[in-house]
Amino acid sequence: MISVSDALDALLALVSPTAVETVPLRAAAGRVLAAPVTARRDQPPFAASAMDGYAVKAAEVERDAMFKIIGESAAGHGFAGQVGAGQAVRIFTGAPVPKGADFVVIQEDISRTGSLITISDHPGPGRNIRALGSDFCVGSSVSAPRILSPADIALLAAMNIADVPVRTKPTVALISTGDELALPGDMPGPDQIIASNTFGLDAMITAVGATARILPIARDTIGSLSMALELANKADLIVTIGGASVGDHDLVEQVTEDVGMSRSFYKVAMRPGKPLMAGKIGPSAMVGLPGNPVSAMVCGHIFLLPMLRVMLGLSPETQTPPLAPLANDLPPNGPRTHYMRARLDNHGLHVFDDQDSARLALFAEANALVIRPPHDTARQKSEHLAYIAI
Amino acid sequence: MISVSDALDALLALVSPTAVETVPLRAAAGRVLAAPVTARRDQPPFAASAMDGYAVKAAEVERDAMFKIIGESAAGHGFAGQVGAGQAVRIFTGAPVPKGADFVVIQEDISRTGSLITISDHPGPGRNIRALGSDFCVGSSVSAPRILSPADIALLAAMNIADVPVRTKPTVALISTGDELALPGDMPGPDQIIASNTFGLDAMITAVGATARILPIARDTIGSLSMALELANKADLIVTIGGASVGDHDLVEQVTEDVGMSRSFYKVAMRPGKPLMAGKIGPSAMVGLPGNPVSAMVCGHIFLLPMLRVMLGLSPETQTPPLAPLANDLPPNGPRTHYMRARLDNHGLHVFDDQDSARLALFAEANALVIRPPHDTARQKSEHLAYIAI
Repeated sequence: MISVSDALDALLALVSPTAVETVPLRAAAGRVLAAPVTARRDQPPFAASAMDGYAVKAAEVERDAMFKIIGESAAGHGFAGQVGAGQAVRIFTGAPVPKGADFVVIQEDISRTGSLITISDHPGPGRNIRALGSDFCVGSSVSAPRILSPADIALLAAMNIADVPVRTKPTVALISTGDELALPGDMPGPDQIIASNTFGLDAMITAVGATARILPIARDTIGSLSMALELANKADLIVTIGGASVGDHDLVEQVTEDVGMSRSFYKVAMRPGKPLMAGKIGPSAMVGLPGNPVSAMVCGHIFLLPMLRVMLGLSPETQTPPLAPLANDLPPNGPRTHYMRARLDNHGLHVFDDQDSARLALFAEANALVIRPPHDTARQKSEHLAYIAI
Repeated sequence: MISVSDALDALLALVSPTAVETVPLRAAAGRVLAAPVTARRDQPPFAASAMDGYAVKAAEVERDAMFKIIGESAAGHGFAGQVGAGQAVRIFTGAPVPKGADFVVIQEDISRTGSLITISDHPGPGRNIRALGSDFCVGSSVSAPRILSPADIALLAAMNIADVPVRTKPTVALISTGDELALPGDMPGPDQIIASNTFGLDAMITAVGATARILPIARDTIGSLSMALELANKADLIVTIGGASVGDHDLVEQVTEDVGMSRSFYKVAMRPGKPLMAGKIGPSAMVGLPGNPVSAMVCGHIFLLPMLRVMLGLSPETQTPPLAPLANDLPPNGPRTHYMRARLDNHGLHVFDDQDSARLALFAEANALVIRPPHDTARQKSEHLAYIAI
């Protein structure tokens, strides 16, 4: 058995960032920017009015000054002429400030009679003009990697980036194994249960930006599992679930050896999830997860998500695990890292009494995994412990 | 001008939950469960072994006790017979516990010779059996509404729910208005800028589970805006961006009145985003957002997302805004609620000096909006202020 951190290191060594593809801007939302992009425009592309008002010469701005209106500058339709002494151009927010003008008197500070205006209130010190390029300039860069947020998408649009280089979505082949499994909607036999892991992992994997392929359930025969592995061919990551201990045989071990898998490790000192194997089958990374539903999902959080983040060109962890106070006491931990299912609310981390790795209904109520290192001492209510939000 | 909270109340009154549709389990991930669903199965559907070992009668379990192995129970293939006195059945994790047995001695506590086993170590008090229905029973309920998490999807699978009732995705028609706008990839004219709001809002809206339709840019004519509104027909929510003040006319006001909009309000006491209008056009809710990119995106967070959450059958707010310490001092606030762009890190909320609502590049660096109520007093570094994560 190896430690969680050694297992994670070994797993991350199995994967590398996917290729770069170019997608239309709209499809880039939530994807990972793969290379820095640079603005193709200045923004604003001209000195622009920040207010509705009148563009004049700053040197002439004072209370009671009068100007003759010689034209209008609206958004999309600038004033082609030049503003001279004693002249003003009616201007609206976002419109180009005409040549010769360098001050916009806001309309609230003006009284107007026909084509004449008078400054009727003391104009403030601000010129109400956004300088050319004051948001960004040609060549201004959006750094990579980053998960493209709605604001990033708006920014890329403003920069006139119609096509965006992003990481190709990693493909993950999910293979559930076991004669006991039926699919949702099936009529299961008396000794059967419904396959749940593939569906939970599919949702988890898809949410971080990978593409999951749910393969047919592999039955507990060499032929069936071999066929599933063949179908998984070319996936960036192959995930088997269960089958690590079938009768007295480890079918997954046997079949993956037959297809030439180079084994990275087997078994990790963690709860839930001890049986976990990993390696490489041709170019694909392969991870064998335990079959208990909660174990499979916890291993998904602890191992698969960091692997996928690396494949997406990101750092493996989103953040240092945050701390929160315990809402109940905890006994000392055993020799394995324990990811304890808990519910975090305003009162702290309520760690469930029942940590049975088969209890999916309970797991669905958890929103945090409290991290207990090996041999962690007993912990008391109000102590702060690190957790992973799930 | 009305307050943010009055505006939000008025906006939420314009919308109601969408219809319920049934989707396949896999497609339900991240969707909002619209009605409680109940398990169609007990889980486990039989008393199941929690370990690899030997199923025997509990009354006979003691150190040095011997048993004759009469068969095997594997996952998916139970043992059909009955365990009698002095008998054991080889059993594996997840397999049905055979009739007559009520204890599983784990294999580490056994020595085996041919078909005979001896308990070689002191078995613990645990029976290593998961009772029938100990995870959930037929009729156990998953409550609604909830955003279906990966763990929820796994649970629904285990309950044999192949089709899931979810809220139909609200449809949102996005109409940018203005002669100054060009699309990403276009060659903009000298007085033009690239439309960014629609793309940012599209990403924001899609991420919470709505479907956005980006309509053609409406030019600053009654005809063009009328046509765009016609195209928006049947959207649950119509969002116009800009056009609230075009030249000396409010085009959006004029055209929406022409199509019979019942006006809910106009202008909200907030920064950024003062010009905001809302009402109903036929069955569709309509919101007119300001055209400044940052204003539009902030209004998206403050108003559109709560509206969409209500349309999805959820409560409008995800949570009470959390508090974080300021990393810098802030001047007193004016008469309007101010959503100040800030970057939250381990040192607290770094509120940007420049709060110009046209600066999209700066907005893309923000991950928090610090909430300043009207007339909020000056605030000092380390004071805790409420913020919205963006």
